Amino acid sequence: MQKKLTGQAVLDLVKTVKFDTAGLVPAIAQDRKSGEILMLAYMNSESLRLTLKTGIVHYYSRSRKKLWKKGESSGNVQKLHKIAIDCDGDALLLTIEQIGDAACHTGYRSCFFRTPGSQGLIARGKKVFNPDKVYGIGRKKIE
Amino acid sequence: MQKKLTGQAVLDLVKTVKFDTAGLVPAIAQDRKSGEILMLAYMNSESLRLTLKTGIVHYYSRSRKKLWKKGESSGNVQKLHKIAIDCDGDALLLTIEQIGDAACHTGYRSCFFRTPGSQGLIARGKKVFNPDKVYGIGRKKIE
Repeated sequence: MQKKLTGQAVLDLVKTVKFDTAGLVPAIAQDRKSGEILMLAYMNSESLRLTLKTGIVHYYSRSRKKLWKKGESSGNVQKLHKIAIDCDGDALLLTIEQIGDAACHTGYRSCFFRTPGSQGLIARGKKVFNPDKVYGIGRKKIE
Repeated sequence: MQKKLTGQAVLDLVKTVKFDTAGLVPAIAQDRKSGEILMLAYMNSESLRLTLKTGIVHYYSRSRKKLWKKGESSGNVQKLHKIAIDCDGDALLLTIEQIGDAACHTGYRSCFFRTPGSQGLIARGKKVFNPDKVYGIGRKKIE
């Protein structure tokens, strides 16, 4: 887990982030062991503070327009191990441990499971769970 | 290098991408060998098509408001090996070979070289080149 940051360190980081006009910053989640990229989502300052305070990754859901604790319905939470900010201050990189082995609400391990082939996009990733079993058939899927 | 895609495959991919209201999509560049995340930048449909056509990564510079061939002044171009699109179609993952070993205009290998510590943000990454030598002292740095 990310070593507990002092209040000052949290303040410094939040102050350095250049949130966009909607108050958001993209955050990449990378598996700490395999290095695999699991997803890209957005944080606002509240979700960033909460992530740093709890060590559990929180995003901001642009579709639901609310704070989103990743894994709140599936149980597939993300434990923060390291956070880095880029040279411009407008992107974050989260090194995480993915509980439940899957980050994507489709059941794939990574959200980046589609690559182009001659017959269109092909799903190549590893499917870890059946979303109907996790979220219930026909239920709106919330990660 | 990314296997040459058919015109149809390029069309399918570009059609699937959900560009934002500014016509952009975030693209993560990951080193194909180490798995290290080197940068996050943005593409418009023109830069995406050009990347797929040439195998050399092109972004769209939001600050300069123009097409940006990564490495156009430093020579540190990125060769595309694989491209993947996420479940929502609103983010891309580029697996690349970074020529010159550094992606960041500051001279660091990765743009994500800063992490929070008790004394504020700390530069922890590997510095590969001196930007003054590559871009000229005081010159506006263009990657």
